[in-house]
Amino acid sequence: MLSLKSSTAPWWLDTVESHVEEVLIDHAHCEKKAAGTALNLIFAYVDRLPLVRELAPIVNEEMAHFRLVLDLLEERGMTFRRLTPSSYGRKLNDLVRKHEPGKAIDRLLVAALIEARSCERFCLLRDRLSDKALAEFYGSLYASEARHHAVYVELAKLFAGEDEIRDRLDELSAAEAAIIDEGDDLARVHS
Amino acid sequence: MLSLKSSTAPWWLDTVESHVEEVLIDHAHCEKKAAGTALNLIFAYVDRLPLVRELAPIVNEEMAHFRLVLDLLEERGMTFRRLTPSSYGRKLNDLVRKHEPGKAIDRLLVAALIEARSCERFCLLRDRLSDKALAEFYGSLYASEARHHAVYVELAKLFAGEDEIRDRLDELSAAEAAIIDEGDDLARVHS
Repeated sequence: MLSLKSSTAPWWLDTVESHVEEVLIDHAHCEKKAAGTALNLIFAYVDRLPLVRELAPIVNEEMAHFRLVLDLLEERGMTFRRLTPSSYGRKLNDLVRKHEPGKAIDRLLVAALIEARSCERFCLLRDRLSDKALAEFYGSLYASEARHHAVYVELAKLFAGEDEIRDRLDELSAAEAAIIDEGDDLARVHS
Repeated sequence: MLSLKSSTAPWWLDTVESHVEEVLIDHAHCEKKAAGTALNLIFAYVDRLPLVRELAPIVNEEMAHFRLVLDLLEERGMTFRRLTPSSYGRKLNDLVRKHEPGKAIDRLLVAALIEARSCERFCLLRDRLSDKALAEFYGSLYASEARHHAVYVELAKLFAGEDEIRDRLDELSAAEAAIIDEGDDLARVHS
C-alpha cells in the first residue's frame, strides 16, 4: 500500500533510542519541510486546481504537526535549533527529472515516498519505542502520513497515465530503498 | 495604528467594481503568497523560536483564507488561474537591505506593510462595495490582516531596538505610500 521496497533495519530504532532529542528536532524540521514542499507544488502548478485544492489542507496539517513537535520539545526541555539534515531528501530530489511533465510527476512521487517512509517509521516507533509517551505520539501521526502518500500518488496521475505513474513509482521506490540502505552518519528521521 | 502614510484613492474602488473577477483571483494569489512569506521567514530565521512560534499559525490562517477565496471563486463560477501580479510586492521587496540584521528587519516590516495595506483596502471594500455579499466577505477578513501587521512589527524588534524599528518603519511606509501612489495598470488588490 505504501509502495516501499524495504523495511527499516533494526539499527535505526537503536539510533533513535540513543538520540531522542536529535531525532525529535529533525522531525520538527521534516514537518516544516513537508509544508514547504506542498506549498511549493501549489506555486509551481497553480493552474491545476485539483492539485491546489488537495495540497492546501496538507500544508496546514504539516504546520499543525510542526507545532505539535515544537510543543513536545518544549515539554521535554529540549531546544529547537538548526540541524544538518540527513542526505535522504537531497538524494531523492536529485532523481527528479528536469523537464515537464516528468518534473511534476517526480516531485509528487518523491513527496509520496517520503510520506510513505515516515509512515513506516512512525509505525515502528509506535510499536517499539521504550518511551511509551513518545510511542503514543507517533501512533497519532502515522495515519496522516499514509493519507498524504496516497494523495501525492493520485495527484501524479494528473500529469500522466496510470501505467506510466505505476512504472515510475516502481523505479523511484527502488531508488528510495537503496538510499535508505546506504544509511547516514547522522541520527535522523530518514537516516 | 497601521503605520500607513496614505489612504487608498477612490479610483481603486472603481477599478475593483469593474474587475471583480480579476481582483478576486489576484486576492487568492495574495493569500497564497502571504503563506509563502510567513513560511520562508520561518525557514530563514528558524533559530528565533518566538518568530517561528508566531508565524506558524499565520501560515495556517493565510492558507485558510486562500481556500476561502477559492471557494468564493467557485461559487461565482470564476476560474482560479495564473495572473500577472501587480508591481507592488516586487517594488517593496526591492527595498529590503541585503545584509543581516537589516534584511530580517526589512522583510518583516515589508510583510507588516502589505498586511496593513490589505487591511485598509479590505475595510474600504467592506464599507463601500456595491456587492453586499462580497462586502461582508471582506468584513470577515480585515481584522486578521491588522493582527498580522502587529505581529510582524513586533517580530522585527527581535532584530533591533524599538527606536530603530520605528524609524525604519517610518521610511518604509513612506516608500510604500509612494508605490501605491504610482499605481499600476493592472486591476489588483495592491494596484
